[in-house]
Amino acid sequence: MMRKILCCLFALGFIFNLEARLSEVEIWDRYEYAHKAKVTGNPFDVSFSATFTHADTSLTVKGFYAGDNVFKLRFMPIKTGKWTFVSQSSEAKLNGLTGSFECIEAGENNHGPVQVANTFHFKYADGTRYYPIGTTSYDWMHIEGDYPEKTVRALEASGFNKIRMLLFVHNFDKDYPEPLLFPFEIKSQSKKADGSIAYEWDFERFNPAYFDMIEARIDALKAIGVEADLILFHPYDEGRWGFDRMPLEVSLRYLEYALARLSSFRNIWWSLANEFDYLRLQAPENWMIFTRQVVANDPYRHLCSIHGSTARYFDYWRDEFTHVSVQDQAPVEGHGRAATVRNIYQKPVIFDEVCYEGNMDNRWGSLSGEEMLYRMWQGIIAGTYVSHSECYMDAPNDYTHDFLARGGDFQGESWKRIRFMRNILEDMPNPLQLSDSSWDPYVSIAGPNYLMIYSGKEVAKEWVFNLPARNPSYPRIKEGTRFKVEIIDTWNMTIEECPIIFEAKNQRYRVCDKENRAVALPERPYLLLRITEVAL
Amino acid sequence: MMRKILCCLFALGFIFNLEARLSEVEIWDRYEYAHKAKVTGNPFDVSFSATFTHADTSLTVKGFYAGDNVFKLRFMPIKTGKWTFVSQSSEAKLNGLTGSFECIEAGENNHGPVQVANTFHFKYADGTRYYPIGTTSYDWMHIEGDYPEKTVRALEASGFNKIRMLLFVHNFDKDYPEPLLFPFEIKSQSKKADGSIAYEWDFERFNPAYFDMIEARIDALKAIGVEADLILFHPYDEGRWGFDRMPLEVSLRYLEYALARLSSFRNIWWSLANEFDYLRLQAPENWMIFTRQVVANDPYRHLCSIHGSTARYFDYWRDEFTHVSVQDQAPVEGHGRAATVRNIYQKPVIFDEVCYEGNMDNRWGSLSGEEMLYRMWQGIIAGTYVSHSECYMDAPNDYTHDFLARGGDFQGESWKRIRFMRNILEDMPNPLQLSDSSWDPYVSIAGPNYLMIYSGKEVAKEWVFNLPARNPSYPRIKEGTRFKVEIIDTWNMTIEECPIIFEAKNQRYRVCDKENRAVALPERPYLLLRITEVAL
Repeated sequence: MMRKILCCLFALGFIFNLEARLSEVEIWDRYEYAHKAKVTGNPFDVSFSATFTHADTSLTVKGFYAGDNVFKLRFMPIKTGKWTFVSQSSEAKLNGLTGSFECIEAGENNHGPVQVANTFHFKYADGTRYYPIGTTSYDWMHIEGDYPEKTVRALEASGFNKIRMLLFVHNFDKDYPEPLLFPFEIKSQSKKADGSIAYEWDFERFNPAYFDMIEARIDALKAIGVEADLILFHPYDEGRWGFDRMPLEVSLRYLEYALARLSSFRNIWWSLANEFDYLRLQAPENWMIFTRQVVANDPYRHLCSIHGSTARYFDYWRDEFTHVSVQDQAPVEGHGRAATVRNIYQKPVIFDEVCYEGNMDNRWGSLSGEEMLYRMWQGIIAGTYVSHSECYMDAPNDYTHDFLARGGDFQGESWKRIRFMRNILEDMPNPLQLSDSSWDPYVSIAGPNYLMIYSGKEVAKEWVFNLPARNPSYPRIKEGTRFKVEIIDTWNMTIEECPIIFEAKNQRYRVCDKENRAVALPERPYLLLRITEVAL
Repeated sequence: MMRKILCCLFALGFIFNLEARLSEVEIWDRYEYAHKAKVTGNPFDVSFSATFTHADTSLTVKGFYAGDNVFKLRFMPIKTGKWTFVSQSSEAKLNGLTGSFECIEAGENNHGPVQVANTFHFKYADGTRYYPIGTTSYDWMHIEGDYPEKTVRALEASGFNKIRMLLFVHNFDKDYPEPLLFPFEIKSQSKKADGSIAYEWDFERFNPAYFDMIEARIDALKAIGVEADLILFHPYDEGRWGFDRMPLEVSLRYLEYALARLSSFRNIWWSLANEFDYLRLQAPENWMIFTRQVVANDPYRHLCSIHGSTARYFDYWRDEFTHVSVQDQAPVEGHGRAATVRNIYQKPVIFDEVCYEGNMDNRWGSLSGEEMLYRMWQGIIAGTYVSHSECYMDAPNDYTHDFLARGGDFQGESWKRIRFMRNILEDMPNPLQLSDSSWDPYVSIAGPNYLMIYSGKEVAKEWVFNLPARNPSYPRIKEGTRFKVEIIDTWNMTIEECPIIFEAKNQRYRVCDKENRAVALPERPYLLLRITEVAL
């Protein structure tokens, strides 16, 4: 009896402590409420949710069992002011719990979750423009030692603002070490004939420590302003642990649990899968079942997409998908091609895999740094986005310094140009789009009298000033408008200004210089011409 | 009374005559049943349909009022054997009519309607492969004199097997003559201040003679094996007659009437619109309303799509659309780009406008013949299809010899290469697809050890024999397979065989010749290499 009372007092104290500590929460930050309750039966089976109410808004979120007899609710407030909540549960001890907190203005580095803006682009919830310049590291969250910390530092230093990563660990090869933690409790394990371990999972019981680890990593990304493009399923398990072939109801339960824990993280994006079509034991129709489960369990509607093998385009037009996250290098291997993909979908397009910089003995992991950066710029100039990664192997099967596999420090060349790229984008008045799509694959426009041309691999002595007369979004260039041209070397990271001031002379389809003058070019590839109005 | 009896006897005689004449109908040909009945009120308001029944199949088709107190039913039998029908009508005289006919085997030139096959391609209903090589002439059906006959002869001579054309006449300019016939009865007409005619239409009454004319043209196309891609709405009226801005219910009534008359034509395809987005007085949501009206009134599900302005991709993934019929030149201006569009849609893709050969003073009607043919081949080699047209003006505003406008004889150069192109396609064992899509934009495969490479505008002295090791549909090329290479000049229409027999040597991603030999090439553009196995 005494023990029960103590336990109760402890639980109350726990709540009060939390309430005191969390009574103020920034908008788009995370409010967490924990409640200690010993339940009979499997605590992961307890239904537990809460409705959070603001003056005129209310959102219901699922809670989850966090281990050690603690149940938690997490919530991302989307408006400033007072929020109150009341819980619902199949378990009396968890039903009717209430609480409240004050949601305050965002702090300096808090812009809210990233959302779709202007059909093809992104903004943070506070209206700040977000240009996704991401990289990929499948396993960085799962690696022992200082890899995770190193990875976060490398991301911060490089300027990447998004990373794709796996929620389930990747089986790189049979000698790849067993991870420390697994998402499910182990029922039993045994050695197979070949020396590898056969696990029997208790799919009814998650391992909260596993998710705690994932969450700490995602929060570390948040702290440096990096979006976490979290891949919920992947085929690189190949039956070693079996998370690529869980029964449908186990997968749905996993998604519900992961979403209850993670959807309040403002920097999270959902990627239903990497190379979904290589998960050959999943029925094709499962992908929309999983996607709907994600959407149904995410009251904030974080960005959500799915990724397939090369040129495998999923049904991205479905409402559940906020954007296109596709693997395909062909549309970024030439001028203007990527625009066709966005013309089709009328959604933001991210080419989330276009091969990688590296030294691998295959055709997808052996791009030069120049080629990696070139593909990124070809996508960007056409109004889409392209993700980076690099895979430098120390030896065959030695993934020690392979960023794609394990994270850590970058080894290559393209990553060094990312901050420079990002600065150019963030200086623009608006995102890029082809000025005269399908007619001119070179010239992109980012605002009134603000245009860019990317030379790619073409090398020329000069560029005769000429631009499309039309564009889809801004006033036509007026006769007599004066322009300067900056020559940006995207590889060497230099910006040089052409001394000529050009003056627009209008023709039917083009705008030329009144004297047909040209910009002298350094005879190098990968140049970006930034053509902007000069005030009179 | 005597008159009534005579009338009745006449009607009966009429039926018996028809029954006798039409008692045998080829499969996919048209059975027509006419019934004379004087009704009170507007005969176009009478609901009239019939259910046609075969042993295990039954289809309901709408009938229509054909003028002169005659109501008609048209039906395209889809199975051989006996068909019977019984009619339904709001009008007692038209209700419960019955009849039957024998559906016999198809004649020599009757392959049935064209349907989608192998996801990306087409076949006739009898299984014969159909490669759409179409052209476009908006108004050829509406022009007086011998234009229609000339057009049909020109199509027959050229080898085109599809034509896009407008159901409503095109207003080319204000001096363009008034057509002889209109689809609706004229309520009144008056001269406007500028001398043009203002019509008041009786939208409740169609002009059967107008549809008779259209139908005769479509049957003339059928007789020469040309598919009629009939455009149901277009913006080139600009209010002159107002068929671009009819009220929604008038548009739906028009579609119902047109479909009752035309859906039994086996060579018909539905194109909801040309440049739908330029019909600015149509609400955007109308297009799916119209499309559903077409599908609901076509029991045979003829091919159905919609066409927009440049790079305006409609929601082609919707089930109502059997294929993509898009205006966009960008995907056919380089190697392999068109494949991205088909990868996305997983449907047949026809680039139904990629600019035209001609001498017009604009950028869309002034391609050279070479450029027109080049774009067609670029689409074809990537596993899609591309439509032709030409517009040669005698003078500004003189459309006399403009095939795109009026039909008649071809004036240009590309049309002369169409039969040759078609023969190459029809010789293939299967349709083309890129062998290693997104990795190699040059090499296309049409069957086991049957590959093609299109040089386009690139000019080279030789081609070192090498092919992708992989392809999505057929067995890999086996080591030691012997190949010959034919050099096809698509412009000069010559086929030359390289004297070397190559022998496959397999590498990881490529197949080379065991001695790395090359094909010597004539230094000309527009070559097609046909690489096929040679029996040992």
